[in-house]
Amino acid sequence: MVQEDKITLFWLPHSRAQRIVWLLEELGVEYNLHMEDRVQDVRAPESFKKFHPLGKTPILHVEKPDGTVKKFGESGFIVQYLIEHYDTTGKFKPVTEDDKDLIDYFNHYAEGTMQPLLVGLLVNNVAAKSVSFPVSLLVKTVVGKINSGYYAPEAEKNVKFLNDFLKAQHAKGRKWFVGDKISAADIMLSFPVQKVIVANGGATVKPVKESYPDMYQYFQDITSEPAWIRAAEKVRGRDHVVINGKL
Amino acid sequence: MVQEDKITLFWLPHSRAQRIVWLLEELGVEYNLHMEDRVQDVRAPESFKKFHPLGKTPILHVEKPDGTVKKFGESGFIVQYLIEHYDTTGKFKPVTEDDKDLIDYFNHYAEGTMQPLLVGLLVNNVAAKSVSFPVSLLVKTVVGKINSGYYAPEAEKNVKFLNDFLKAQHAKGRKWFVGDKISAADIMLSFPVQKVIVANGGATVKPVKESYPDMYQYFQDITSEPAWIRAAEKVRGRDHVVINGKL
Repeated sequence: MVQEDKITLFWLPHSRAQRIVWLLEELGVEYNLHMEDRVQDVRAPESFKKFHPLGKTPILHVEKPDGTVKKFGESGFIVQYLIEHYDTTGKFKPVTEDDKDLIDYFNHYAEGTMQPLLVGLLVNNVAAKSVSFPVSLLVKTVVGKINSGYYAPEAEKNVKFLNDFLKAQHAKGRKWFVGDKISAADIMLSFPVQKVIVANGGATVKPVKESYPDMYQYFQDITSEPAWIRAAEKVRGRDHVVINGKL
Repeated sequence: MVQEDKITLFWLPHSRAQRIVWLLEELGVEYNLHMEDRVQDVRAPESFKKFHPLGKTPILHVEKPDGTVKKFGESGFIVQYLIEHYDTTGKFKPVTEDDKDLIDYFNHYAEGTMQPLLVGLLVNNVAAKSVSFPVSLLVKTVVGKINSGYYAPEAEKNVKFLNDFLKAQHAKGRKWFVGDKISAADIMLSFPVQKVIVANGGATVKPVKESYPDMYQYFQDITSEPAWIRAAEKVRGRDHVVINGKL
């Protein structure tokens, strides 16, 4: 089948956009990767506002054969849209209605619950590091109280929740989050799972590898997928993406 | 049509659950409202973990005629599920494909982008109020820096983004977020819009009524909808829900 739509993904390093590259590779569609670097280490370039009003990555453009361009933001929506329109082989099609519900649930959960907790911890930790000693001690104390009062226990609870899900799957000899094949749940959850593993001790009090071995195994598995590795190679030189679980 | 599924919504005061009550009233389905109070003003009761592993509201149970019970969390998913299964009259059905895309986008945006910013501000402000003078001055300084460095400008940008959308709609004589009828976008965005209006000066630096008049008008409109008012009456005595825009 000839692909008529021109797809462009607007991408920045160490961002939510890399999981969309993974999905595009899994779907086997043709796409253009617009890569830029971040400004001052963390900010999106102002130019990104040309591509979508909120100017943050990922942004997806879909140019239709008549020349109209659809401009999308929100990872959960982009993943849902790409699978709905370009999964021509049914690779991502849920097998049962229960699987469909769980996949849709996790699609919303990833950015609606898990990711805000990790961002909350990150923002506070950046703040704590941004001031010099001895003020930094005070800032660390305050930030520590906010984290221990809300973000840290919530993040720990959610890492356990995800690990429990994977443990039940592994017990059935399955490696993905839902059913026995890859789904939008894996694409969406790959980003927060990666953040938890890579920031070992940052998102959880307990060491991830020892305390959440099913999540750790899952991370080994997804980062060894051929499409994941092809996605990592696409951004080589711009970003370091873990492959084969090697941190 | 006889409704075969038994629907139960698990609800707490001043939470994301009230917009689900609004949706259930709009859909005209039968449902049971399980209402409890919060613990120590902000926490969900431990008992809620019986209803869903993460134990936070909203939780939706759907009991099928064969006795099986589906247990759901995530506002965006619950809204999508209820409309997919119980919108028997097509009230929420998008008119065009572009409308569908925008509705699905806003469904993800509400909890994926807007709400985490408002929660970030809230958590920090609760922290700043939780300690006594003179320590509170230090805490306020630190929290103020975190807010002004990230949450506040992001929240302001997003309030403007939403107001711009509504302004364009109002210019066409339309009162809803997408197209010319109510959609999942309105249900989902009603919660953050309400938070912005009610916490005037908390989520934005600029006064909402004067600086974002289209959002303010929208708030008057949705809180005057008959189904919104019925939803407010359902929780009378447990929560104060704004009706007819009266704060």
